[in-house]
Amino acid sequence: MASLKGVQFTDADQLAVNTIRTLAADVVAKGMAPVAHVLFSKFLNFNPKDSKWFNRDRFILSNGHACALQYILLHLAGYKLSMDDLKNFRQIDSLTPGHPENDHTDGIEVTTGPLGQGISNAVGLAIAQAHMGATFNKDGYNLFTNKTYAFLGDGCLQEGVSSEASSLAGHLQLGNLIAIYDDNKITIDGNTDVSFTEDVEARYRAYGWEVLHVTSGDSDLTAIAGAIAEARDNNSKPTLIVLRTTIGYGSLKEGGHDVHGSPLKADDIKQLKTRFGFDPEKTFVVPEEVYDIYHKAGDAGAKKEAEWKKTLEEYKGKYPKEHSEIVRRFEGRLPEGWEKALPTFKPGDAAVASRKLSENVLNAVAPIIPELVGGSADLTGSNLTRWKGAVDFQPPSSGLGDYSGRYFRFGVREHGMTAIVNGIAAYGGLIPFGATFLNFVSYAAGAVRLSALSNLRVLNIATHDSIGLGEDGPTHQPVETAAWLRATPNMMFWRPADGNETSAAYAIALTSPKTPSTLALSRQNLPQLEGSSIEKASKGGYVLEEAKDADITLISTGSEVPIVVDAAKQLREKGLKVRVSSIPCFEVFNQQSKEYRLSVLPHGAPIMSVEAYSTFGWHEYAHETFGLRAWGASGPYLKVYEKFEITPNGIASRAEKVVSFYKQRGDKIYSPVDKAIDFDTAIASKH
Amino acid sequence: MASLKGVQFTDADQLAVNTIRTLAADVVAKGMAPVAHVLFSKFLNFNPKDSKWFNRDRFILSNGHACALQYILLHLAGYKLSMDDLKNFRQIDSLTPGHPENDHTDGIEVTTGPLGQGISNAVGLAIAQAHMGATFNKDGYNLFTNKTYAFLGDGCLQEGVSSEASSLAGHLQLGNLIAIYDDNKITIDGNTDVSFTEDVEARYRAYGWEVLHVTSGDSDLTAIAGAIAEARDNNSKPTLIVLRTTIGYGSLKEGGHDVHGSPLKADDIKQLKTRFGFDPEKTFVVPEEVYDIYHKAGDAGAKKEAEWKKTLEEYKGKYPKEHSEIVRRFEGRLPEGWEKALPTFKPGDAAVASRKLSENVLNAVAPIIPELVGGSADLTGSNLTRWKGAVDFQPPSSGLGDYSGRYFRFGVREHGMTAIVNGIAAYGGLIPFGATFLNFVSYAAGAVRLSALSNLRVLNIATHDSIGLGEDGPTHQPVETAAWLRATPNMMFWRPADGNETSAAYAIALTSPKTPSTLALSRQNLPQLEGSSIEKASKGGYVLEEAKDADITLISTGSEVPIVVDAAKQLREKGLKVRVSSIPCFEVFNQQSKEYRLSVLPHGAPIMSVEAYSTFGWHEYAHETFGLRAWGASGPYLKVYEKFEITPNGIASRAEKVVSFYKQRGDKIYSPVDKAIDFDTAIASKH
Repeated sequence: MASLKGVQFTDADQLAVNTIRTLAADVVAKGMAPVAHVLFSKFLNFNPKDSKWFNRDRFILSNGHACALQYILLHLAGYKLSMDDLKNFRQIDSLTPGHPENDHTDGIEVTTGPLGQGISNAVGLAIAQAHMGATFNKDGYNLFTNKTYAFLGDGCLQEGVSSEASSLAGHLQLGNLIAIYDDNKITIDGNTDVSFTEDVEARYRAYGWEVLHVTSGDSDLTAIAGAIAEARDNNSKPTLIVLRTTIGYGSLKEGGHDVHGSPLKADDIKQLKTRFGFDPEKTFVVPEEVYDIYHKAGDAGAKKEAEWKKTLEEYKGKYPKEHSEIVRRFEGRLPEGWEKALPTFKPGDAAVASRKLSENVLNAVAPIIPELVGGSADLTGSNLTRWKGAVDFQPPSSGLGDYSGRYFRFGVREHGMTAIVNGIAAYGGLIPFGATFLNFVSYAAGAVRLSALSNLRVLNIATHDSIGLGEDGPTHQPVETAAWLRATPNMMFWRPADGNETSAAYAIALTSPKTPSTLALSRQNLPQLEGSSIEKASKGGYVLEEAKDADITLISTGSEVPIVVDAAKQLREKGLKVRVSSIPCFEVFNQQSKEYRLSVLPHGAPIMSVEAYSTFGWHEYAHETFGLRAWGASGPYLKVYEKFEITPNGIASRAEKVVSFYKQRGDKIYSPVDKAIDFDTAIASKH
Repeated sequence: MASLKGVQFTDADQLAVNTIRTLAADVVAKGMAPVAHVLFSKFLNFNPKDSKWFNRDRFILSNGHACALQYILLHLAGYKLSMDDLKNFRQIDSLTPGHPENDHTDGIEVTTGPLGQGISNAVGLAIAQAHMGATFNKDGYNLFTNKTYAFLGDGCLQEGVSSEASSLAGHLQLGNLIAIYDDNKITIDGNTDVSFTEDVEARYRAYGWEVLHVTSGDSDLTAIAGAIAEARDNNSKPTLIVLRTTIGYGSLKEGGHDVHGSPLKADDIKQLKTRFGFDPEKTFVVPEEVYDIYHKAGDAGAKKEAEWKKTLEEYKGKYPKEHSEIVRRFEGRLPEGWEKALPTFKPGDAAVASRKLSENVLNAVAPIIPELVGGSADLTGSNLTRWKGAVDFQPPSSGLGDYSGRYFRFGVREHGMTAIVNGIAAYGGLIPFGATFLNFVSYAAGAVRLSALSNLRVLNIATHDSIGLGEDGPTHQPVETAAWLRATPNMMFWRPADGNETSAAYAIALTSPKTPSTLALSRQNLPQLEGSSIEKASKGGYVLEEAKDADITLISTGSEVPIVVDAAKQLREKGLKVRVSSIPCFEVFNQQSKEYRLSVLPHGAPIMSVEAYSTFGWHEYAHETFGLRAWGASGPYLKVYEKFEITPNGIASRAEKVVSFYKQRGDKIYSPVDKAIDFDTAIASKH
């Protein structure tokens, strides 16, 4: 049995559990009060006065619908969450929204609620700790030693994303990860018998986890503490603690699935309070002894942080370089002058696939930005994401790498990868990327929206970004994906057209601390454009080829820009005046002044967009759109482009049609950018 | 040991295996030749002359990148796939694209390639067989008895979607499902040691599967046959056969990960052919004995189909009603007059949430459309998808339902659910739906795009469709989802505004045999609109309120339509002439004539859209857009609408601004629908 040194339970602990239960009844009933109390008051290292302390233990509520419980604990522990905040549960603009949101409520590490995400983020947080420890800890100076604890329910365990992340956690032997499973046998649809009869414990053992049990999770505080201590002390494997609980314990509906997510009725709350020794007429009551327990825990954490800071100060004397690195990284500052390493290109330079251009950027910046970490979902050789000299992040015993390694082998697990990457970013001090084909970023959609909603600096490196991948065919060719990512608030979808634009995409992605990016990169070679530059592309859109009194403006992105440039040449030979603009990132372009946007997309001539994706969304910038309204096709990529007529000829013939259509109308032509309702008058604020 | 009656191997079988190997080398090398040969030539019931025979065994290649192998087998067996088609592998418009596509190549059951999908489709196909058997088989008349066989690799096993579907398959005790795992220890990134060290067999046992082994899958035909026979005869559980193979067996790169997906070099192909006793100089060679084996297998299948047809004819005499049901269903015809059951509404009728309106439709049509089957990802009580009198599809031993049940308890497994539903639709004779919150349709994005690409009639019932869900907050409120689904080719995204529009959405969804639908439904109550009808809404967009010489046209969808109607009232009180149009489905509206579209969105006045989603994509129809450019918020839903100013006041004030902006311009206003490049001149064909 693991040591329980220093862990003792008194009547005040039972009172604390009952307080949490009755408070929970005042908001919404949930069943994990005992384990939450034991963990927060006896195990978790945290300082409520400095919720960002680097080496705090991380607590993740993967079953985020139970957030009332988490808010109660944060309140008891003395985070910036008052009793009034608890009373404002689920009210507009409150600190206590219906699911926990990081970057919104003090003490919330990651945004949870969409099931399976939190436990997968926890894998990322555990990876980050292991990596930071392996990188910075020195003999006698263990700066990064924290644990990651996650609560989860049946729903999280059924989701594929958690299967992916848990399998990888087992492979990586993450001994710093402790997951506590609320095994209450109830889901919204009823008893788990209706759909979830698998042997969860055997499955987790198969993943390489240790599995522990607490049979009376409703009441046995000592058994709970014993299991947590054992898990904490097991550094060779992640641990799943299976905690048998009763949903709605103490309520009249105890054990029934109608407790799931719906508040208790008034008379039930009253009998529950009576049962747990509370005044049934009073609401939101916390006995002083309970606050005492939590403040003691907080004080202990503050003391630990003070000791830790002392160690850090000593570390500074002995390892000044490493120390300043730690500080710099957690402040989110990149190393001075890093951007000078970004490759630049001239028109004469060789044509290169943008996935290869991306590899060049990684090779250039990875050595000077050591916080850049990442990997691929089993497409390393295709995504070209493993920079020269990279070391794999692997358990040392594997002989394949070690925990100081910065390159991840995620396996064929796109959704798990992205949720893990979110967790790594949430840890701090690291800028993570995940890589796959653009089409399979969709597999990770659940996690991608959380990158954006949670304001996390993560990069999705997404190669093979269109029909230009050729032979693999429509199952692998994204058509709808760009529209999805462009419609996602706070997501930068970059589709660079050449080397300078690729460098610009990385420049903005790496320096946007609260915005994730998706970089759509070509399989096929792209020429270096006349007129591109990092500076211009960094505005999200710019004029590539100007013309006075133009007949038409052609706009495009990525691999179609050089095709449009060729089409423009054809049109000029026919006497037309043609402007060409490149719009590598809508999100960034939309942040430019209206004046600037009008200079790129001016009045006076029709604007036609060209892109080998669904045309959906392009009318925001263009009078006319040309692209796909169908799925792609399998074949050599030039043949595929021909099939869909996205060729200089196909574009030029449509452009001529557009020019004569608007000439025939004869009216003044206004830029689509000039609107009565601009973004600034719409509700444009970021979350 | 299971019976191998009738299964004998001769030298011709070894020749067949070698033929497949050498043919595979001519296209792209893959390692499952022996098991493919044994399965196709000795076990699979199929009739290449009637590839749609209802009771054929289904074969699914979940590792779709190995499709050269599947094409070779289809060719040998006599499907409509010539040697020239094989030579055209991965060429544009060939019958042999880079991944297998149903509805394109004879004998391909489902479109695979995106990893994890095929095995999950296979679970759906197995469910469909179990259901059809339980529904139609009678004593002495076993019409639906087929098995489903799936090949899969490490990649499929790592994907969360397959974890979800496999867990459910175990729960459902699908004894008719046999999965054969190509355990070659190699993925694209190298040895599986780098990321996939879990105990797959223990995991599948934990799911409730039987696990069998073949240790020399490269050569031991008898052991392979024994395992398949044993799996076939085990009707109590799904079976995973773990087949140890060597990637690139026989090539110089045998066992190396660089064989994965890339063709062999010419000299390697030559040595391989020599090694297997073939002329190294000849390509695409099939000895006559090999064709003989396969034609014999095909003939045996044809004989079985003939016997089956005789049984069906006898069945017709004894069970005429059931017989005509079977025929009707497999022809994809709905029962005569079913549409009369669709609820209709008048303006005076009570306000009802569209999820509840959807429930009313299901209650009305489920009894008369017995092929309608479906269920929810653990949100039955919220999605309101379980119609009155529904029986659960469950293993009979569970006591919770039986295989004739039409309602599925998918568990919290959105991606698995949608892939399973695709498989059910692919079986034929069934129209399946899956249900979850709209936001979590994104979790299933990988399968959703395959519903559309594969031309499958499946319905995604997607409730809680906006910020209108209120308290659950931004983690559950879709903002970007509509844009994604509207940009997806061949996907109908319906967002009905009231009862008549909800009935219209179902009417079109159920009668579109080659197009999936997503129905976005509100949590909150919606009034019955003046001016809506099933007929009008069935056009995808229509005029709700007309006005002569209008100052503005307001367009909207779903729960925002009644808010827009109120805004229009306000504007009229201020003397403005306002038109209102409802556009419940872009995909369907875009199929109407230009004349009709111009009648809904006419020239002459500015058009402004209102929707509680990202405005992205609305410029296709509107000069001005009003909606979200941010994430939602947690709170009572009316407060959330107020926060984002999507209220009659907020809309009216913007509309006034729009009217004066365009009046000030003074130029003629053209409808955005009137374009030089209309859909018919773009590449608009469906796949």
